[in-house]
Amino acid sequence: MSSAAAAKPILYSYFRSSCSWRVRIALALKGIAYEYRAISLIKDGGEQFKDEFRSVNPQREVPVLEIDGHQLAQSLAIIEYLEETRPDGASLLPKDAHQRALVRQVSDAIAQGIQPIQNLRVLNHVGDEKKVEWARHWINHGLAGLEALLAKTHGKYSVGDTVTMADCTLVPQLYNARRFKVDLSQFPIALAIENELIKLDAFKAAHPSAQPDCPESERGTQ
Amino acid sequence: MSSAAAAKPILYSYFRSSCSWRVRIALALKGIAYEYRAISLIKDGGEQFKDEFRSVNPQREVPVLEIDGHQLAQSLAIIEYLEETRPDGASLLPKDAHQRALVRQVSDAIAQGIQPIQNLRVLNHVGDEKKVEWARHWINHGLAGLEALLAKTHGKYSVGDTVTMADCTLVPQLYNARRFKVDLSQFPIALAIENELIKLDAFKAAHPSAQPDCPESERGTQ
Repeated sequence: MSSAAAAKPILYSYFRSSCSWRVRIALALKGIAYEYRAISLIKDGGEQFKDEFRSVNPQREVPVLEIDGHQLAQSLAIIEYLEETRPDGASLLPKDAHQRALVRQVSDAIAQGIQPIQNLRVLNHVGDEKKVEWARHWINHGLAGLEALLAKTHGKYSVGDTVTMADCTLVPQLYNARRFKVDLSQFPIALAIENELIKLDAFKAAHPSAQPDCPESERGTQ
Repeated sequence: MSSAAAAKPILYSYFRSSCSWRVRIALALKGIAYEYRAISLIKDGGEQFKDEFRSVNPQREVPVLEIDGHQLAQSLAIIEYLEETRPDGASLLPKDAHQRALVRQVSDAIAQGIQPIQNLRVLNHVGDEKKVEWARHWINHGLAGLEALLAKTHGKYSVGDTVTMADCTLVPQLYNARRFKVDLSQFPIALAIENELIKLDAFKAAHPSAQPDCPESERGTQ
């Protein structure tokens, strides 16, 4: 291993970013220690737009994981990389091709189908007056489709009885749903899965309120 | 092989759906013959909402690929499944883990970062008056980030000199950009890659204007 490859991974993260959170869960499930570098998406119009972040991610987004001498972006691409290069520890994708497809289907239903339409950048563009209604509409719509999908795939967790990449995407999305006061009682399967997941140490460690950049005032909001 | 597994795959597709198009490219690159079933997202308020489609995809979206006795949804999950179960023919992901991460990063930059914010469902919600400006804004923003990423990853194609899943996502996104009159001269790397890709038979076969559900009036718009 080169010295770059042997270095401790660095995660560029924002405590409340769903996509950063997904990667934090995956790292915790795999037991990979890392250095946390906070990038505020709020402060000074967004620290991801500072000059020094350009070389880290030309797309100006978190998360970025520096690992094995690479700077990787896009949350699910990072999780797939961890799975391929760190097969030890928790496996976040099943062995069977059809089961793997279901894990990716649930993950993408959230990561492509819900989160992008209600992320901070889109809500800022929609404007303060309409953003709550907008976010609630799209999260409601997306979770309805997701619940129908989970009805076919779930066991104790999103796909069967093992924690997978799908679960790394589910928990942050339900947190966003609560922020926008979506009525989650419509989605009992998603809630039952979440109820199991939040018992796990990895999910506790990855929660926004446990991150170094979480303001004191929000630490009680688990 | 069971009779279900041996059956010819069926693709539920809409000619102009970006996500259907990605899967059509992948199937063509891999040389997999399939039966085409058109699902109009326009007719009668959307044929994906008909009763008989519920069991095909409870999320009510195309594409769906019936293959090996399964009904798979979400375009990139389908492409990953094809790659895992049909390693023969064109390989849509490189062997090296870092290169695979880059392919997924480019793919997700489009599939999570651009397309969901400008898809038909969102534009209908934004409304006729504002939808062109909305689509143009988000495609512009997304392609600017993508161009910066491609500057680091591209060769002849999106990632290096081999056609990958990333290219399956790029071509439909540029088509959408043209529909909304985005000035593509800002993105010379993306354009140069597209110029190589459209020479390939698989990309010709997968184009909306070559599909059975493309109206006669749009057949000349390649």
